[in-house]
Amino acid sequence: MFREILQDIVESTEGSTAGLLMGFDGIAIDQYSAGDGAFDVEAVGMEYSVLLKGVQQAAEMLDAGTASEIAVRTERLTTVVRLLNDEYFAAVTLQPDGNLGKARFLLRVKAPDILDNL
Amino acid sequence: MFREILQDIVESTEGSTAGLLMGFDGIAIDQYSAGDGAFDVEAVGMEYSVLLKGVQQAAEMLDAGTASEIAVRTERLTTVVRLLNDEYFAAVTLQPDGNLGKARFLLRVKAPDILDNL
Repeated sequence: MFREILQDIVESTEGSTAGLLMGFDGIAIDQYSAGDGAFDVEAVGMEYSVLLKGVQQAAEMLDAGTASEIAVRTERLTTVVRLLNDEYFAAVTLQPDGNLGKARFLLRVKAPDILDNL
Repeated sequence: MFREILQDIVESTEGSTAGLLMGFDGIAIDQYSAGDGAFDVEAVGMEYSVLLKGVQQAAEMLDAGTASEIAVRTERLTTVVRLLNDEYFAAVTLQPDGNLGKARFLLRVKAPDILDNL
């Protein structure tokens, strides 16, 4: 059910290679890979899960409210992370020329569906 | 000169509150505030500068190439960070409904101007 939502997001986003639902502890609940990605989405999630704690701490220090979304662009990989609650996040990986805006939009509108099932 | 570039970016971006040029060590070179921001842009830069090292380490671990850009959205603050080189980054803060896409675009096209002067 999670996988279907992830697949829907990945297949509707130009240049998206994979989607992932993961805990902040780096343990994945479900994932979907389009098959043409150069990166292991679970490894990406594990690396970025460490960063999310830092982002939350920074937001807390600044009194900027709860962190909701992080997008990281590197030479060969773009990643959008949507924080769902205190325990879980959803992430989408894209090729550098992928549609980052669409990935962000779909993660936002699909977040309630994922939360309903968590 | 840096301040003029930062001002240009902030004033051309709807909902942008401040721009900052800072070293990864958290020491600011220059900044520009539109005056209506609820956040101290230097404090934002200092908090996020810590994260940037984590982003670079994650990118390295994943062999994803150099990190170029990070966008973080929290309840009351949106921040776009553009990594300029191994030492410096530029950041723009926006209100939550600010034009994130324009901030990213302007940071990208103005980066060479900033680098020329560093």
